[in-house]
Amino acid sequence: MTVPGEHGLTKPHHDPSDRLTSHPRPSLGDRVTVDVELPDVDAGGLAVDGGWLRGVRDGEQFWVDGELDRAAGGGAGDRLRFEFDITQPVHNYRFHLDTADGPRWLTGIGLIDYDPGDREDFRLITAGGAPDWVPDVVWYQIFPDRFATSGTNRPADPLTPTDTSWARWAEWDDPVASGPAAMTQLYGGDLDGVIGRLDHLVDLGVGGIYLTPVFPARSNHRYDASTFDTVDPVLGGDRALAALSEAAGRRGIRVMTDLTLNHTGDGHEWFAAAKADAGSVEAGFYHFTDHPVRYESWLGIASLPKLDHRSTELARRYYAGPDSTLGRYLQPPFDMAGWRIDVANMTGRLGPLDLNQQVARAARATVDGLGGDRWLVGEHFFDASLDAPGDGWHGVMNYAGITRPIVSWLGEFTSLSAFMAGPGQAGRDGVQMARSMDAIRAAMPWQVTLGSMSLLGSHDTARWRTMCTDDERALVGFGLLLCLPGAPTFFYGDEVGLTGDSSEQARRPMPWDTAAWDHRFLAHYRRLVAVRNKHEALRRGGFRWVDTAPDAVVFLRETPSQRLLVRASRATTEPLAIPARLLGAETLAAVVDADDLRPRAGAFTLPGDGPSLSIWELG
Amino acid sequence: MTVPGEHGLTKPHHDPSDRLTSHPRPSLGDRVTVDVELPDVDAGGLAVDGGWLRGVRDGEQFWVDGELDRAAGGGAGDRLRFEFDITQPVHNYRFHLDTADGPRWLTGIGLIDYDPGDREDFRLITAGGAPDWVPDVVWYQIFPDRFATSGTNRPADPLTPTDTSWARWAEWDDPVASGPAAMTQLYGGDLDGVIGRLDHLVDLGVGGIYLTPVFPARSNHRYDASTFDTVDPVLGGDRALAALSEAAGRRGIRVMTDLTLNHTGDGHEWFAAAKADAGSVEAGFYHFTDHPVRYESWLGIASLPKLDHRSTELARRYYAGPDSTLGRYLQPPFDMAGWRIDVANMTGRLGPLDLNQQVARAARATVDGLGGDRWLVGEHFFDASLDAPGDGWHGVMNYAGITRPIVSWLGEFTSLSAFMAGPGQAGRDGVQMARSMDAIRAAMPWQVTLGSMSLLGSHDTARWRTMCTDDERALVGFGLLLCLPGAPTFFYGDEVGLTGDSSEQARRPMPWDTAAWDHRFLAHYRRLVAVRNKHEALRRGGFRWVDTAPDAVVFLRETPSQRLLVRASRATTEPLAIPARLLGAETLAAVVDADDLRPRAGAFTLPGDGPSLSIWELG
Repeated sequence: MTVPGEHGLTKPHHDPSDRLTSHPRPSLGDRVTVDVELPDVDAGGLAVDGGWLRGVRDGEQFWVDGELDRAAGGGAGDRLRFEFDITQPVHNYRFHLDTADGPRWLTGIGLIDYDPGDREDFRLITAGGAPDWVPDVVWYQIFPDRFATSGTNRPADPLTPTDTSWARWAEWDDPVASGPAAMTQLYGGDLDGVIGRLDHLVDLGVGGIYLTPVFPARSNHRYDASTFDTVDPVLGGDRALAALSEAAGRRGIRVMTDLTLNHTGDGHEWFAAAKADAGSVEAGFYHFTDHPVRYESWLGIASLPKLDHRSTELARRYYAGPDSTLGRYLQPPFDMAGWRIDVANMTGRLGPLDLNQQVARAARATVDGLGGDRWLVGEHFFDASLDAPGDGWHGVMNYAGITRPIVSWLGEFTSLSAFMAGPGQAGRDGVQMARSMDAIRAAMPWQVTLGSMSLLGSHDTARWRTMCTDDERALVGFGLLLCLPGAPTFFYGDEVGLTGDSSEQARRPMPWDTAAWDHRFLAHYRRLVAVRNKHEALRRGGFRWVDTAPDAVVFLRETPSQRLLVRASRATTEPLAIPARLLGAETLAAVVDADDLRPRAGAFTLPGDGPSLSIWELG
Repeated sequence: MTVPGEHGLTKPHHDPSDRLTSHPRPSLGDRVTVDVELPDVDAGGLAVDGGWLRGVRDGEQFWVDGELDRAAGGGAGDRLRFEFDITQPVHNYRFHLDTADGPRWLTGIGLIDYDPGDREDFRLITAGGAPDWVPDVVWYQIFPDRFATSGTNRPADPLTPTDTSWARWAEWDDPVASGPAAMTQLYGGDLDGVIGRLDHLVDLGVGGIYLTPVFPARSNHRYDASTFDTVDPVLGGDRALAALSEAAGRRGIRVMTDLTLNHTGDGHEWFAAAKADAGSVEAGFYHFTDHPVRYESWLGIASLPKLDHRSTELARRYYAGPDSTLGRYLQPPFDMAGWRIDVANMTGRLGPLDLNQQVARAARATVDGLGGDRWLVGEHFFDASLDAPGDGWHGVMNYAGITRPIVSWLGEFTSLSAFMAGPGQAGRDGVQMARSMDAIRAAMPWQVTLGSMSLLGSHDTARWRTMCTDDERALVGFGLLLCLPGAPTFFYGDEVGLTGDSSEQARRPMPWDTAAWDHRFLAHYRRLVAVRNKHEALRRGGFRWVDTAPDAVVFLRETPSQRLLVRASRATTEPLAIPARLLGAETLAAVVDADDLRPRAGAFTLPGDGPSLSIWELG
C-alpha cells in the first residue's frame, strides 16, 4: 500500500479556479483574492508558516503578504489568502512559502526548491476566456460526408449545381480508399442527414456538434474551400446549415464549424481572381513568388495556397468584422456557436513574417463585437502558450496537454498523425504523463485551458480505440478525458467502437445498423457523458494531483460546492491509502465504477483495480 | 568520493555555442548543423542509439534525423549531427534521443523523461546578438560622483553654471548619509577624475567602464535627468566625456553610460514644457492624469515622471534614429560603446498599455543603423526571456540568472535591494543554484545570455563583500562570475574590498589611499580578470555542468580550441572522481588555484577544497 507522493495532499495547493480565486475572470480594476490551500499538518501535511505572493506589475515585481484564514476547527481547510489589484490584462503570480522543508515556491508545476523563471506562474487574464458555457459542453465531431445522409442533396438533384466532377461517389458501406484516392471519395453524407440523427446525439448527452468544413471544395474533407459565400450544396447548402442549427438548438445542442484562415483551395474564387490578374486585390491575398504559377502553399501542397495576412481587404472579407465570413456565420440564420480554426498554429506565419497574433486578435474582435458568446478555438498540436495568451483564440485543440499525454500512457504512437507524434516517440508512465500535462497546463492561463477543446483523437488521427493497446484502456481514456479540464470532444462513431489505424480509415461512414455497434462502448460513453453533464466539478472545477504512479493517477476536481476524486489506472496497482484529514472528507460516495468508502484507521483505501476509471464524491 | 551526478558527463550534451553549432549567429537562408555530444559508453556514459531534432517552422513542427559522427578512436567525442535551414528569426529546437534508459528529450535544462513545452528549447536567432566584442570585456562600473575627482569642475568654477542648489557638498572622506539625504550628498567626483585614474583600470585588466548617468539632474545618482542635451558640467560636461572616451580608448578601454527611457526627472526641460502647456508636444511625453499636478511616475515617486511612449516625437528626440539622444552619444566626439538602459523591464508599461518591445526594437534599430557595433543592455532583475528575445536589447543585466543564484549560494539576502530579493528569500544550496541558473539560461537564446551583463552587485545593492557570509566566499563568487557566460561587471571599489550593507553605503567614495585597500582582494580581482582575458573559453565557450552538489559545483567552458574545467566551492567537500574518458582529457593543467592533475586508475580526482575556485585546462 502506498501513500500520496510528491504531488499529493501533503503539499500546499493553488489553482486559479473559482474555489481558490475570487475572480477567476477578472476585469481591470478588480481587487482579487487568491488562496493557497494548506495541508493538515497533524495528518502528515507539510507545515507552512507563512508566505508571500510574488506578482509583476508594469514589469516590476511586487509582494503581498499572506493572511492565514483558519477554517472552523483548524486543520484541513486552512488557507493563506492574498489580495491584489488587477491593473493589466495578464497578471502572473506565484507564491513564496516558508515551509518546514525550507523556503519553497508554489508554481503551476507544484512546489519547487529553486528560483524559477515566470513561465510556470499562475495567470489571471482580463481577456475573459471562452464563453462561460464552453466547458459545460461535450462536443461531438462530425465529418459531414461520413456521418449520415438524407439522400436528397446529391448532384443529380437540380438544386445542387456544385461541380463534383472531381469526386468518386461511394456507397455508404463501401470501404474507404487509401492514399490520394481517399480525398476524392464522396459518400454523400449531408447536414439534413445530421438533422435526422439528432436523437442519437441527444441520447448520448452531447451538447455540441463540431462540423469539419461545410464549404464547397474539391475534396471530401473540404479544407480546400472554393468559396465561403455558401454552404456546399452537396451538404444541403445554406438552408440545411440553418435548419441544422435550428433543429439542434431546439434539442439543446449547439453547432459550430471549421474555418481555415491559413489557406484556401486552389479552386477558390479568390485564387482564380488572383491568378487571372496580378494587379487584382485578390492577388494580394496570396504569396505569389512567380505569378501566376508559383506561390506559397500549406506544407508545399500546391492545391492549398497560403493566405497573406498583410492584406487588409482579406481581413475585411474573411475574418474582421460582422460582415466577414467569420462574422456572418455566427449570426442568423446560421447562428454557429463558434469556429474551430484550422492550422491556427501556422496561420499568418511564413519565414520572417509572423502575423499570427494579429489574425487571432482580429478574429477575436469579431467574436467579441457580436456579443462574445461564440467560441473561437484554434487547432494547435504543440505548446500553445505563446500563441494562445488569452486575447486571441479562446483556447486551442489541446493535443499537447491532453491528447499526447494520454496516448503516451494508454496507447501507442505508431498510428498517430505525424502532426502529433514524431519519430521515436514512445510510451510514458503515469508520472511522466502527469508531468507532460503539467508542463502544458502551467504555461497557459487556467481560463485558456478551460476554454480549450480536449480530445483523444479526431479526423486527423487514427481512431482512439485503435490507438489504445486494448479496449479496457480505451474506455479508461475516454473517462479520463471527461474528467480533465477543457471541453471534451470525440469523433463520431467512437461511441459505437469504430476502429481505424489511420486518419483515412478513421473516416469510414457511420454505421447505422445498430447490430454493428459495440454496445459496451456506447453504454460507457453515454454513462460518462451523463456523469460529466451532472457534475459541475468535472466541468469547471480546479485541478489537483493527489497521486501519480506509473500505472495509476489520482486527482481532485473541485468547485466551491462539489469535490470529486478521480482514479484512472491502466493496470492493477497496490491500493492507495489517503488519510481522511488530508483529503478533508468524511465519506467518499461512489459516482462511477466504485464503492462508497469510509475511512478505516483514519484513511480511505482506494482499490487497486485496473484498467479502470473510478469517481467518488467527497462528503 | 563521489562521481558526477544528474547533470554530468554521463549524459549527452548540447549548447548553441560555436563548439556544437556551425552558425551560432546565423542569417536567414543559412543551412546550419547542430551537434549533440555523446558520452563515452565504455566509461559509464548513457548509450544513445540515435535521435531526432525537433524544430518548429512557420508554427509547425519538423523533424531531422541525426547522423552519427564518430570521432577518431570512438568513444568520447562521438556526436549526433543534425542539419536544418534557417528560415525565420527565431528557431527553437530540442532533441529526442533513443537512450538505454528509454526515450528522452534533451533541452536547455538537460535530459528529461516527459514531453515538455517549448520554453526550454535551445534557440538560434538571426537578430545576431550583442557585438562580438561584448563577452570579451570585463566591465568596471563607476558611479561618477564617487569614483575620483579632478577638483576642477565644481560649481564655483565659472564654467559650470549648473544649478546645484539642491546638493549638500561633502568632502571625499565624509561618511555617506542615510535616507533621503543620501541622494543629495555630492562629493564632486567627475569624469576628469576618471581619466586621472585610468592606470588603476589598466592595471586591473578591465576592458570597459560603465558610467551610471552623466546628465545634469537633481540628485547624485542622476537618474532624474533634467536634460539630455549636455553632459553634466559638474562632471566636466561634454568635453570631459569626450576626453574620457578618447583617453580610455587609447588604453584599450571602452566607455558606456546609462539612459533611463522609463522616466525623466521632474526637473527635466521636457517636463517643464509639458507642465507649462497642456497642448505642448512635450505634454504628450508624459502621462498626465490631472494636468499639471497629477501624472504617472516611477513607483509613485513624483520626482520621476513616467514617459508615454505613444509619442512619436518622444521617440524621435530620445531613442529613434542617429540624431536622437540615444544615437548621438554613440557617435563622435563621445563614441560611447553602448547604453545600459535603466529599468528596461518597466519601460513603456503602464497598466493595460505595453509598448516595452516597441521601445526596445526602436532603440535597437538606432544602434543597428549606426553600424551595430554598440551594446544595448537593459536593466532587468527578473525573468527576461519574453522581454529580451534578441531583437531589442542585446542582453540584460542578468540579476535573475547570475546574481540572485550566486547570492543565494554564497551570500545572504537580508541586505539586498528590494528589486532583487523579496520577503522570505533564503539561501540555496549548489544544486538549487544550478537549477535556478538553468531555468533562466534555458529560457533565453544563448546569444542573449552571452550578450548580457553578469554581476554580483551594483549601485542598487549592498556591496558584494558584505552580502557574503565571509571573505572567502566573496572571493569565490568573483571567480565564479568571471567563469560564467556574459560580460562580467563589478562595482568600483569591490576590487579593494569596500563594504556597505545597503546601496547607499555601497556608494561611498573610492579611497585612493592604498593603505585603506584590501590588497588580497585586489590581487585576487586582478588575477581572475587576467585569467578571463587570457582564456577564450571563459569568455565565449559553451557551458556544461559536470557536477552540482550542495557545497560545490563543477562545470566546463568549451570552445573548439580550448576546454576549461571550473570547480567552485563554498565549503570543503569529498574529492570528486571524474573518469578521464568521460571528460575526454588526458591531463588537467592548473590555471587557477589548482595543481596539475593526471588520471589515476582512469580518473581525475578533484580535491575537495573550500571555499575555493579552481580552474584547469583540459589537455
